Amino acid sequence: MKNLLSMDEVSTTEIMQILERAAQFEAGEPSQLEKDYYVSNLFFEPSTRTKTSFESAERRIGATVIPFDAGFSSVLKGETLYDTVKTIQQSGIDAVVIRHKEDAYYEQLLGGLDIAIINAGDGTGQHPSQSLLDLYTIFKEFGRFEGINVTIAGDVAHSRVAKSDAVALTKLGANVNFVCPPEWQGEFDAHYDWDQQIETSDVIMLLRVQHERDAAYEGFTKESYHEQYGLTIDREKQMKDGAIIMHPAPINRGVEIDTTLVECERSRIFAQMKNGLFIRMAILEFILKGRG
Amino acid sequence: MKNLLSMDEVSTTEIMQILERAAQFEAGEPSQLEKDYYVSNLFFEPSTRTKTSFESAERRIGATVIPFDAGFSSVLKGETLYDTVKTIQQSGIDAVVIRHKEDAYYEQLLGGLDIAIINAGDGTGQHPSQSLLDLYTIFKEFGRFEGINVTIAGDVAHSRVAKSDAVALTKLGANVNFVCPPEWQGEFDAHYDWDQQIETSDVIMLLRVQHERDAAYEGFTKESYHEQYGLTIDREKQMKDGAIIMHPAPINRGVEIDTTLVECERSRIFAQMKNGLFIRMAILEFILKGRG
Amino acid sequence: MKNLLSMDEVSTTEIMQILERAAQFEAGEPSQLEKDYYVSNLFFEPSTRTKTSFESAERRIGATVIPFDAGFSSVLKGETLYDTVKTIQQSGIDAVVIRHKEDAYYEQLLGGLDIAIINAGDGTGQHPSQSLLDLYTIFKEFGRFEGINVTIAGDVAHSRVAKSDAVALTKLGANVNFVCPPEWQGEFDAHYDWDQQIETSDVIMLLRVQHERDAAYEGFTKESYHEQYGLTIDREKQMKDGAIIMHPAPINRGVEIDTTLVECERSRIFAQMKNGLFIRMAILEFILKGRG
Repeated sequence: MKNLLSMDEVSTTEIMQILERAAQFEAGEPSQLEKDYYVSNLFFEPSTRTKTSFESAERRIGATVIPFDAGFSSVLKGETLYDTVKTIQQSGIDAVVIRHKEDAYYEQLLGGLDIAIINAGDGTGQHPSQSLLDLYTIFKEFGRFEGINVTIAGDVAHSRVAKSDAVALTKLGANVNFVCPPEWQGEFDAHYDWDQQIETSDVIMLLRVQHERDAAYEGFTKESYHEQYGLTIDREKQMKDGAIIMHPAPINRGVEIDTTLVECERSRIFAQMKNGLFIRMAILEFILKGRG
Repeated sequence: MKNLLSMDEVSTTEIMQILERAAQFEAGEPSQLEKDYYVSNLFFEPSTRTKTSFESAERRIGATVIPFDAGFSSVLKGETLYDTVKTIQQSGIDAVVIRHKEDAYYEQLLGGLDIAIINAGDGTGQHPSQSLLDLYTIFKEFGRFEGINVTIAGDVAHSRVAKSDAVALTKLGANVNFVCPPEWQGEFDAHYDWDQQIETSDVIMLLRVQHERDAAYEGFTKESYHEQYGLTIDREKQMKDGAIIMHPAPINRGVEIDTTLVECERSRIFAQMKNGLFIRMAILEFILKGRG
Repeated sequence: MKNLLSMDEVSTTEIMQILERAAQFEAGEPSQLEKDYYVSNLFFEPSTRTKTSFESAERRIGATVIPFDAGFSSVLKGETLYDTVKTIQQSGIDAVVIRHKEDAYYEQLLGGLDIAIINAGDGTGQHPSQSLLDLYTIFKEFGRFEGINVTIAGDVAHSRVAKSDAVALTKLGANVNFVCPPEWQGEFDAHYDWDQQIETSDVIMLLRVQHERDAAYEGFTKESYHEQYGLTIDREKQMKDGAIIMHPAPINRGVEIDTTLVECERSRIFAQMKNGLFIRMAILEFILKGRG
């Protein structure tokens, strides 16, 4: 694995290797990197958790981080993404973590460059490091993927998390279902209400309503969305024993999920973030070691 | 001391410990931290000196600093401050230094989190690390607080420095007076002119006119403010032997203070900034050591 | 050399020392700095390559980098550049790398401060670190400067690269010519077409059309500029054996240069960026060592 671009390209063997290495990092094992690698984080869209998690993971495995401010770079002067990334490579940087609004932006970077690309989210495409941390969270809980019922609820069509998780979980033998309004199902077959899913799911994963997109609440108020598609206090009571709640965050409290459930016993929302740190250490080490 | 939130909560014993440790750092003593701590600086308002000072202090005591860009974070997506800070905690960060426009923003962070909070300014509330460096500057000069006459001049009502310093200096036995226009005295009893204060003060501390607030110059031009409430060349000549000038900066040259006085012999304005580095090393070490 | 401000002030001896030290860094020699120096990068104008290059170089020579966000600093509150830089000095920082829109901004910093200033671009003034990497690129290619024909093409009047390179190359014995529209020649005598230069130049250096300046394309379309003043596929064929193409970047592909030539065999454009890393390591080490 030279780059991490989408979950389509990561084999189940590689997934299990990354999960195992993350568990070792969580248990306190040190990084195996033997030389000083340079990494830069190119976030062209806002981020708190993914960026902070990568910044922390990079330093914990002993890499040197070179700052990059997308909003104050030569991109403003019309430079192409290829030229920007090649520039960064020429400053002696081994890997870049990129978040960009364009779907599959990384395709333009695959020829002519000698720098590892880690996709931290492409448009409405994929979000593989989030997917791997979701897998780690589920695996820690159930010890397997085979036969686990995962329901993903919300704006599936525009969610890169939904896409990456659907690909990966299906590959690993889980059953993936979707709950959303018809206009948000995109390429997936979805259920339009919770009735069939709430009592049978082992994992309920809520997606953020992206109210920065104009159409996000089309036809809904925050309250009516919560009532129809959110995880209400009543619905949580119908969940089966041992079932867990996940959310990639940031959370709209009171919309996707009742605010009192965010840190309830079933919730793994903040645990996901902690798992993300170890997963990203594993991803980075895996890719950097491969560069020799 | 688990957090540093306001000078109301810092005892005189703790103040003197921090001042003593700052003096040791200034004398070249190394940090006593034995493990690798992670710190992040969350500045939701612009800053040069406080942020640079903390960034430098953190590295000098051997902490690892994880960058955070408030203007390009999930706060833009409506995330609550609690959720943002808990996210940062979950990425393995031990302490956050926060500046935020909301008074006492830290109250919403005191339950449910296991991360140290260092307040670098809350709205028109307090600014405890600035206060501690002011105390250090005064203590280095006079060797005591008891009986020292400190006059704070300017927009007292909106100044977090004035509030923190008034609380701390009073607690330590200094006499604190205020000089300002009546509409800027806020909760304090102020003198409305310099007459009684200029010759008796050991310390004259000028506050920045916050012209980014609409009403700042209400009723004043820069010149008329300088004439009535600023430290003019004439007023400096009336100051008593050994008296010093302080200012938390940034300075509006020619408004709060004549530009030729900024680096005059009495001025400790740039010395304050240097003292800030050692004070912040002491604060950080004190709080991080307490976490074990 | 206490500061690096403009190529007017750097002697040919100093230039050759920096080039030699850069070659040693490129060959893998370690930094000779024996203590921990603190550096900060103050970029008041957008930059990718210069900033990334300095950030990487600073860490490679073992310096500690203190972040500074010009767009979120007290400059917004009206602080003078002198006060900002002195503040940074007082936080224990040894050197600042500054890019600023004002010509010769550094003159206001030369009295009263004890911090090294490295100019990373002043308005339409100079860009000495870019010039030194250009010199290194040319020297690596030809082994000398004496008699080398260098043609600089484009918006010469507003280019700090053109100014720094013209000064330095002339001092070192190269022949420098300019090709540009009459209104862009500024202080230089220029040729208004390529006819005399294309076949005789050893180095063709293209300058970016600064379309963020309103008047940049005045009288031109991208296509007509490319046709008259750009390096077209046809013109490249007329270049003499061994002649090279340079560009300080960012590049407007299809304007200054045909996109297929950006990485052609003659192009040293991305090599320049790599050379910049070693040059900046040499500059920083040279200046920091001088501080003792």
